[in-house]
Amino acid sequence: MNSGEFRRRGKEMVDFVADYLEGIEGRQVYPDVEPGYLRPLIPTSAPEEPDTFEDILNDVEKIIMPGVTHWHSPYFFAYFPTANSYPALLADILCGAIGCIGFSWAASPACTELETVMMDWLGKMLKLPEAFLAGQVGEGGGVIQGSASEATLMALLAARTKVVRRLQAASPGLTQGAIMEKLVAYSSDQLVATLGTTSCCSFDNLLEVGPICNEENMWLHIDAAYAGSSFICPEFRHLLNGVEFADSFNFNPHKWLLVNFDCSAMWVKKRTDLIGAFKLDPLYLKHSHQDSGLITDYRHWQLPLGRRFRSLKMWFVFRMYGVKGLQAYIRKHVQLAREFECLVRQDPRFEICAEVTLGLVCFRLKGSNKLNEDLLERINSAKKIHLVPCHLRDKFVLRFAICSRSVELTHVQRSWEHIRQLTTDLLRAQRD
Amino acid sequence: MNSGEFRRRGKEMVDFVADYLEGIEGRQVYPDVEPGYLRPLIPTSAPEEPDTFEDILNDVEKIIMPGVTHWHSPYFFAYFPTANSYPALLADILCGAIGCIGFSWAASPACTELETVMMDWLGKMLKLPEAFLAGQVGEGGGVIQGSASEATLMALLAARTKVVRRLQAASPGLTQGAIMEKLVAYSSDQLVATLGTTSCCSFDNLLEVGPICNEENMWLHIDAAYAGSSFICPEFRHLLNGVEFADSFNFNPHKWLLVNFDCSAMWVKKRTDLIGAFKLDPLYLKHSHQDSGLITDYRHWQLPLGRRFRSLKMWFVFRMYGVKGLQAYIRKHVQLAREFECLVRQDPRFEICAEVTLGLVCFRLKGSNKLNEDLLERINSAKKIHLVPCHLRDKFVLRFAICSRSVELTHVQRSWEHIRQLTTDLLRAQRD
Repeated sequence: MNSGEFRRRGKEMVDFVADYLEGIEGRQVYPDVEPGYLRPLIPTSAPEEPDTFEDILNDVEKIIMPGVTHWHSPYFFAYFPTANSYPALLADILCGAIGCIGFSWAASPACTELETVMMDWLGKMLKLPEAFLAGQVGEGGGVIQGSASEATLMALLAARTKVVRRLQAASPGLTQGAIMEKLVAYSSDQLVATLGTTSCCSFDNLLEVGPICNEENMWLHIDAAYAGSSFICPEFRHLLNGVEFADSFNFNPHKWLLVNFDCSAMWVKKRTDLIGAFKLDPLYLKHSHQDSGLITDYRHWQLPLGRRFRSLKMWFVFRMYGVKGLQAYIRKHVQLAREFECLVRQDPRFEICAEVTLGLVCFRLKGSNKLNEDLLERINSAKKIHLVPCHLRDKFVLRFAICSRSVELTHVQRSWEHIRQLTTDLLRAQRD
Repeated sequence: MNSGEFRRRGKEMVDFVADYLEGIEGRQVYPDVEPGYLRPLIPTSAPEEPDTFEDILNDVEKIIMPGVTHWHSPYFFAYFPTANSYPALLADILCGAIGCIGFSWAASPACTELETVMMDWLGKMLKLPEAFLAGQVGEGGGVIQGSASEATLMALLAARTKVVRRLQAASPGLTQGAIMEKLVAYSSDQLVATLGTTSCCSFDNLLEVGPICNEENMWLHIDAAYAGSSFICPEFRHLLNGVEFADSFNFNPHKWLLVNFDCSAMWVKKRTDLIGAFKLDPLYLKHSHQDSGLITDYRHWQLPLGRRFRSLKMWFVFRMYGVKGLQAYIRKHVQLAREFECLVRQDPRFEICAEVTLGLVCFRLKGSNKLNEDLLERINSAKKIHLVPCHLRDKFVLRFAICSRSVELTHVQRSWEHIRQLTTDLLRAQRD
């Protein structure tokens, strides 16, 4: 395929994608396929000669789409949101074309420098303490990780390296092994200190945990994977109070801030803590500026060596929405969750199971876990909407998470009417 | 931005990208900027109100491009290739729009199933032993990781879990800690068993290492990050001989097989080994098919929870090139490396420093390391071409890696003439 054909096919793909997202409401949110559906539909090995683009695009509709769970359907309320926005899609086309691998400053200075500045922009939106920002002379700074899991692992490894060095400095006779076997990682009920857990969006009390960690010289990592995006709104910023005690902080703009996956934002107060744990310096990656103290080589900040130009997505999204547009987006989702909560509270058959702080409503039918499992089974079998459950204090609970960029009040209302109808059917079937 | 505006802007972006790649030869391969160049060019914080797309696209040319190292310039010979092809760009547009997070089969069945089948297609292209393929009833199978580092870490963790369980089964009194502290990970000179090292593309002897690992019940992981793509050509497949002794094997189609980053292909002979090490099963990720034995939940195969629909890139690339097209691409690069090797050998001032097996030529000026460092400095300062060095047995060596999809013999010849000219200048300056 030459660039002329790419111009033509690329534009067809843009239309295909716009058609898909415009019409997504009309697609069944959860697919009908059974495990193993796809293999018989395609050849057992790659073709020797090229196929045409028409064939492939036809197969997308025939083979792929029937097996897609449509995460961006306004009837998708499962898990947590995953971001999808047009500005991010546009940026990703550019990111793919530039196709640089930004493991060092020299490997593509723009890739590294835009990332540092975008992480400062985002940190300022969240009103993170100054210590987490890179600025021109700061000791802190941010990095885009692939996922919150990677950020947590990086924090853990940095914490371990730091404490080993501190103890070895104090007692030079201590071996690394002797120190390691005594190290303890504390975590809360839902892992590390968490702001907005997956099950029910609960919050650890940082103002209690933080000072203890600081006094005891313990590394504090805070994970706000989902909730973090909301902190750009002044009315939710208080949920982040106590972050000043942390050594590292992480949340996922790829969940709720319209920056397509993957974009997990991590900040540290002392970047030397991260870099110290991972420094990798073979000759083929060295460059003339690296010892100047002026530059960032992000390969030392993460597990993989390679990295894409992901800050372009942040830049496009932040600029094309503006902070006000992003705040409005968060507020709309929170408002929809509250509307759903109100609807649930109006039906005495149901109960709300956790405080609705942001965009997640945990609810259940008053009654046994079995009853609620049956209700969820009916909801997900009907495939008009899609939910997943969680356990809260041994109770089986349904999660209704506001997810899609295109979800409106009417979708929430229709979904609730649908749930009520299925509930009535279920209770009638049980009586009969 | 609504879908109508996306149609318009998306098409503009397709043209922008096509213009960029068509004209990339005319751009200076390595940028002129100094560390910190970008920050003063953009605002210190995100705008409150939206910017226009025109402003952003103008800023890409004004602010981003001057700081880009153009990895896809035909004058880029540094590191190793990173893939960039039109079919992969098209697939990534679709991947972004579908925007599913395929951590479980249910989260998007097509995402999981296409990946399993594409990994089988790719395994067959490489003539991997049947044991590594999933097929319909196999015990093995493939997964797309983000990078070879992640694949290596997964193999290490799986190996550790497996040996701990084996020893605990034999001696139930043994604690995990007692076993862990005695575990040893062996690696070669350049880490794990490697086919095609980064420095000089050397190969470990699997036919020696493999049987010993099998006899001693040791996990053997093979990393062929760069070289792996070449094994689709029958004339290079022998370099993979011995893979039958391995427990896990990994290479990066995102390097040399035209599938844009990230796409690191990893296979295991027993998928239960991987899954056993990582099983993560909170209620909100459970689904009705998961205990049927019929499905794959890829979250157990990797560190992060989230994952994109990356197999679309493989599907588009394999189908639009066909196996013959991909083989032709590999052969062209190898041929260009040989042409460069011939040119170097014709100039008695130079020596070739390692056997040229694939697309990398390691060469140097006969003489001191200092002389070669000076030559590289002149090459990279001139910014007409871009190379990086390596150390081979204490010698400072220049690496000339065939990288770009658009590189032709004329670029290689012109680059060599340029190197010869700079060499003549350098030697004259030293004499004067």
